[in-house]
Amino acid sequence: MKKKLSLEETGSFARENLKDILALGFDERNLEVIVDTKDITQLYPIALKVAKHLTASTVKATFGFEDSDNVGLFFFTSIQSAPAFIESVRKGRHVFCLIPCAIDQDPHFRLTRDVAPKLGFPKPALIHSKFFPSLLGEGKMSSSAEGSCIFLNDDEEIAKQKIFDAVTGGGGTLKEHREKGGKPEVCSVFKYYEYFFEEGDEKLREIYELCKSGELICGDCKRMLAERVARFLREHKKRREKVNVEKFLTQG
Amino acid sequence: MKKKLSLEETGSFARENLKDILALGFDERNLEVIVDTKDITQLYPIALKVAKHLTASTVKATFGFEDSDNVGLFFFTSIQSAPAFIESVRKGRHVFCLIPCAIDQDPHFRLTRDVAPKLGFPKPALIHSKFFPSLLGEGKMSSSAEGSCIFLNDDEEIAKQKIFDAVTGGGGTLKEHREKGGKPEVCSVFKYYEYFFEEGDEKLREIYELCKSGELICGDCKRMLAERVARFLREHKKRREKVNVEKFLTQG
Repeated sequence: MKKKLSLEETGSFARENLKDILALGFDERNLEVIVDTKDITQLYPIALKVAKHLTASTVKATFGFEDSDNVGLFFFTSIQSAPAFIESVRKGRHVFCLIPCAIDQDPHFRLTRDVAPKLGFPKPALIHSKFFPSLLGEGKMSSSAEGSCIFLNDDEEIAKQKIFDAVTGGGGTLKEHREKGGKPEVCSVFKYYEYFFEEGDEKLREIYELCKSGELICGDCKRMLAERVARFLREHKKRREKVNVEKFLTQG
Repeated sequence: MKKKLSLEETGSFARENLKDILALGFDERNLEVIVDTKDITQLYPIALKVAKHLTASTVKATFGFEDSDNVGLFFFTSIQSAPAFIESVRKGRHVFCLIPCAIDQDPHFRLTRDVAPKLGFPKPALIHSKFFPSLLGEGKMSSSAEGSCIFLNDDEEIAKQKIFDAVTGGGGTLKEHREKGGKPEVCSVFKYYEYFFEEGDEKLREIYELCKSGELICGDCKRMLAERVARFLREHKKRREKVNVEKFLTQG
C-alpha cells in the first residue's frame, strides 16, 4: 500500500501540542481535551445535526469555497461546531460555552451561532485572542515562515539567533539610533516583551522610553530578551518532560 | 432544550434492523456490524482521506446536489466509502471488498472506486441486488407507501390484508380469468412467490402455468401466499426474540 493510515499518525501533532499546553500550566483537574479523530464518537452525532442546517451555499459565501474544493472543507464547520454543544448534550440542559480563538477561526463559530437556536442549544460566545507577532516585522507569525517565530521546542541557540535576526524599530545606524531614538511601537522585539516577557507595566514602560530616547540600543535589548526566552525555554522543557498527556488522549 | 441528542436515539433503527438480519440467519462468527455513529472512530480518519479527493463539483454532478443542499449530503460519500477500505487499514495490506447493494447506492461506490487508487487501496467491487417488488403493482416497494410491502414486524392479519389488497395479473372478473387466464409476469403476488416464498423452480413453474391457464384464481393464490407469509413471520418473530444484538453494537 502506498500510504498507511493510522490514528497514531493523526494524533501526533495533538500529542505534542497538548504537552505544551499542560507544561504552560493548565489545571489538569479542569481540563478536558477533545481530539477530533479520537473523540469523534461524541462529536459526529452532533456534527450531523449541525450539517443539516448548513447549506453548501452558506459555507461557500462564508469561506469563499469553490466547487473545485473538496467536500471535507465543506463539512468541516459541522465538526468544528460540535464542542460548543457537547456539554449541553451531556448534561441534557443548556450549558453555555466560551470559545477563545484567533479571528481566523471566527467564521466557523459565526455559523455555529446561527445554527445553535435551530438545534435548541445556546449560542456559544467568542473571545478573540491577538495574533502572535512575527519577528520578521509586520503581520503575524507563521510556522511556515522560518524565523518569524520561536517554537516551544526550539534549541536555545536557535531562539537566540532568531531574536538577533528580528526586525526592530531601531535606527539605521548606531549613531542615528542614539540621536533620534528607536520606534518600539513597530518593533517585533518590543512586542515580545509586551506580549510575553515583561509582565510589569512599569518596567515595560521603561524599556519603551529607553528605546525611544536612544539610550537602549537594539543589541542590548535583544540580548536581554534572548536571556529571558532561553530561561523560559529551559523551564518549559523541564515542565514538558513531566507532563502526562496519555490520560487525556485515551478514547472518549 | 427543544431536542435532546443521544447516541441511543441514533442507534435504534440500527438495532431493529440488526435484529432482523441476525434472525434471517447471518452467521454471527463471520459477521461484523459497522454503525456509522458508533464506529465513527474507525471510519472518520478514512473518510477524511477520501474527502480530500472528492470535490463539491464531483458530488454535485453525481447526485444532482445544489448549493442549497446541506453540507452533510456533500460529505456523506466519504463516510459511505470508509468500510470499503477499513479492512485494508486494519491489516496494513490490500484486502479486497465486495459490496452488495441496490442500484440506488451505486453512485457512492462509483466515487469510492475513483478515489481508491489515489489512497493506495484496491477498488471495491459491487454486486447489485434487485429492488423489492411493490404489492401495489409496478415498481419497487417503499416503506412510506402503505401497503406496498410487508414489514418483518407486521402482524399476521395486517400482512394477510396487504396480500389480499395486492395488485395482481388476474382477469377483471372471475369469468374472464377462467376463460383467458391471468398474467403472472405482471403480478405482484407471483413476484412474492418468485422472490421469496417458493424456492422450487418446478413448483414456481406450476403456479405460473395454473395462473396462465385460468385454473388458479387470485383469491386462492393469495390465500396460499398469505399462509406462507404468516408462517414465515411467526418463525421470524421467534428467531428475532432469541438474537443478541448488543455484542455487535458495543463500541468499535
